[in-house]
Amino acid sequence: MTTKDDLMAGFAGESQANRKYASFSNKAAEEGFTKVATLFKAASLAEEIHARRHLQVYGIPSTVENLKAAIEGETEEFTHMYPEFVKRSQEEGNEDATRSFTYAMKAEQVHAGLYEKALSAVKSGKDLEVSKVFLCPVCGNVALESAPGACPICGVPGKKFQEITL
Amino acid sequence: MTTKDDLMAGFAGESQANRKYASFSNKAAEEGFTKVATLFKAASLAEEIHARRHLQVYGIPSTVENLKAAIEGETEEFTHMYPEFVKRSQEEGNEDATRSFTYAMKAEQVHAGLYEKALSAVKSGKDLEVSKVFLCPVCGNVALESAPGACPICGVPGKKFQEITL
Ligand SMILES: [Fe+2]
Ligand SMILES: [Fe+2]
Ligand SMILES: [Fe+2]
Ligand SMILES: [Fe+2]
Ligand SMILES: [Fe+2]
Ligand SMILES: [Fe+2]
Repeated sequence: MTTKDDLMAGFAGESQANRKYASFSNKAAEEGFTKVATLFKAASLAEEIHARRHLQVYGIPSTVENLKAAIEGETEEFTHMYPEFVKRSQEEGNEDATRSFTYAMKAEQVHAGLYEKALSAVKSGKDLEVSKVFLCPVCGNVALESAPGACPICGVPGKKFQEITL
Repeated sequence: MTTKDDLMAGFAGESQANRKYASFSNKAAEEGFTKVATLFKAASLAEEIHARRHLQVYGIPSTVENLKAAIEGETEEFTHMYPEFVKRSQEEGNEDATRSFTYAMKAEQVHAGLYEKALSAVKSGKDLEVSKVFLCPVCGNVALESAPGACPICGVPGKKFQEITL
């Protein structure tokens, strides 16, 4: 183990704690413990700070390299990881898991395609040419320019899509 | 491997992608690629949606159980993981890593103490008794009721602390 490995291990732990505490905060609020929910939210944001600093110290490459890494990760997920998870969840008859894996699998394929477009632009020194970016709040689908009539992945009406700005 | 394992593996991957893309978005904005930064932000939020759904399907226990798990995780981090990481980074002379690990180690100890207070309250059916919760934006320290004059962990002036609300 080296400090480089430790930074990545720390980043992995902090990222998961960040997301876990956010869900634990929602759960505490549901149970009526609003102050405990606030504490979980504060700690969730604290772990976000830890994750960001560890990754920063590890080193964040250029956007070209980040896009290549993102395409590689997304492609692995939608071609291998999620298809295997979907298959196993179907064999186990766990429909909620099948839905969760399927939404992610299809959204990752969309993400990979959009990152490819971005990579082509950035490689020639230009920004991605797009005026608006929309997100499906149900399945994580991303659409450029305008929301579809209905989400092709999860079926939610397009008016539920959120425009994302920096 | 079972679907339970897959849900946790998916959650781990999505949580890290969520945090990585947020940092990649900042990097793209720094490089002047604001539309690529917007795309990374949208995908970051998409991975947050995936992480939340996988964890939800996995199952989120009661707040009492969540607090116990959080205390266990924080304690492992501040008593074993981070002390080891700090030591190794010092041996390697990586001062930025030592600072990042030290901030996290000390903040986790504070988090564990606050979760203990919350657990005592929730075990007797009550909410945590606190009116305000503050977060140090530099090191992730959390303070109840009021911000300190200066952060005891990182030294930042207390006026930089952010009040966290649900
Ligand atoms: Fe942390
Ligand atoms: Fe993705
Ligand atoms: Fe959708
Ligand atoms: Fe995802
Ligand atoms: Fe913590
Ligand atoms: Fe601090």
